[in-house]
Amino acid sequence: MSSDVRLYVDHPLGAGQTVPLDRDRALYLFAVMRLGVGDRLTLINGRDGAWSALVAEASKRGGVLAVDAQTAPQVTPPDLWLMFAPIKKARTDFIVEKAVEMGASRILPVVTDYTNERARQDKLQAHAVEAAEQCGGTFVPPVDPVARLAAVLDGWGTGADTTERRILFCDEGLVGQPADLSGLAPGPWAVLIGPEGGFSPAERARLQAMPQAQAVSLGPRILRADTAAVAALTLWQVALGDWRGGHA
Amino acid sequence: MSSDVRLYVDHPLGAGQTVPLDRDRALYLFAVMRLGVGDRLTLINGRDGAWSALVAEASKRGGVLAVDAQTAPQVTPPDLWLMFAPIKKARTDFIVEKAVEMGASRILPVVTDYTNERARQDKLQAHAVEAAEQCGGTFVPPVDPVARLAAVLDGWGTGADTTERRILFCDEGLVGQPADLSGLAPGPWAVLIGPEGGFSPAERARLQAMPQAQAVSLGPRILRADTAAVAALTLWQVALGDWRGGHA
Repeated sequence: MSSDVRLYVDHPLGAGQTVPLDRDRALYLFAVMRLGVGDRLTLINGRDGAWSALVAEASKRGGVLAVDAQTAPQVTPPDLWLMFAPIKKARTDFIVEKAVEMGASRILPVVTDYTNERARQDKLQAHAVEAAEQCGGTFVPPVDPVARLAAVLDGWGTGADTTERRILFCDEGLVGQPADLSGLAPGPWAVLIGPEGGFSPAERARLQAMPQAQAVSLGPRILRADTAAVAALTLWQVALGDWRGGHA
Repeated sequence: MSSDVRLYVDHPLGAGQTVPLDRDRALYLFAVMRLGVGDRLTLINGRDGAWSALVAEASKRGGVLAVDAQTAPQVTPPDLWLMFAPIKKARTDFIVEKAVEMGASRILPVVTDYTNERARQDKLQAHAVEAAEQCGGTFVPPVDPVARLAAVLDGWGTGADTTERRILFCDEGLVGQPADLSGLAPGPWAVLIGPEGGFSPAERARLQAMPQAQAVSLGPRILRADTAAVAALTLWQVALGDWRGGHA
């Protein structure tokens, strides 16, 4: 039987590969999703596209999947990071889910001056995997360990992945100004979303002084952080990313 | 004491007005938010802007607020409806919240061929009020009673409010095509978001045949309905609404 089940595995995928299952994945597939020997599912690993696989062996403690045919090519999103300040748990989970759907290539939780909430990198990464399984994607953005925004900005431009990278920061101080991204320079970017209450005056001053940073308005109403993340990623994807006209 | 409390009341607001409180609102202000006589809060009613008010009388069963100064003018969003198919409760609540933040002027829950969930108009309306209180807005979009999409489309163009109104429908069949709204005609619009699983072939055919309807792609990944709502409202607000450049 074919099934709609999509499963992320940390294992190479290719015709003829066999994938062993650990206890957790076996429980999920055989007890929760009620698959059995001969049933089909879709596998992703974040790099080899999507593959159809057959349950070859199934027990409560493990199992083996036999990979046969690729069903979708690997689709890697544009080089766009999402940096966001953790908020309440359900909404933080939503931001990670939205980042995956909207095609962020890396997710960086950052603690700002007005951040009151904590987040665990392993939980957020698991949530990103789940979002990729559910939204039909083939890419899972890596989630960085939680870091202080000030430390992230201190190091900006010193590593290979930030030398050319610009920061699009969503500035509540600009509420009501046009959300104009038409002049945005192409290249790698990071969208930065603040917590409820926005950035502190010191953070805003620092960002405004960074040559790599550009402020953007998100319309005349105050948005929650999860709404702001989707809106800002939409604006960037249409202007420079894989939503734009003329894109291959 | 001044407070951050914002409360929606169905009462005219103006300098010198007094607003009586029913039991529910008295409980909320005096027991939950712990306000007392002499404390300040902000009132909205969806049409007169935001006003500062003082608690003049407080008891467990009622109270009186004295309105004095307007703190923000009424801001009414552009003429943009959001039509969406109810999904699971938490996500339906999110869609309503997002619609308020993103400046939808009216919210229409529609039952499509693939809709499995129900929704209650009174609960959704209460949620829209709460979202307006929390996001600092002064406008509360009315939520229509739940109706079948087919019936809504049957009547399209016959009432004064749909004669000139176009429909922007988010078509999963266009996944991967550019999200191009540059040619959108100005005027009243309705964004239409389908349920998980999209529109049925019959619904898609009908929408494609309507001269008022225009399909839009939301990028190369499949989006959840709540993500799609924010993304589509963002695209429209930037192209034609109150996020655009050159807007007063």
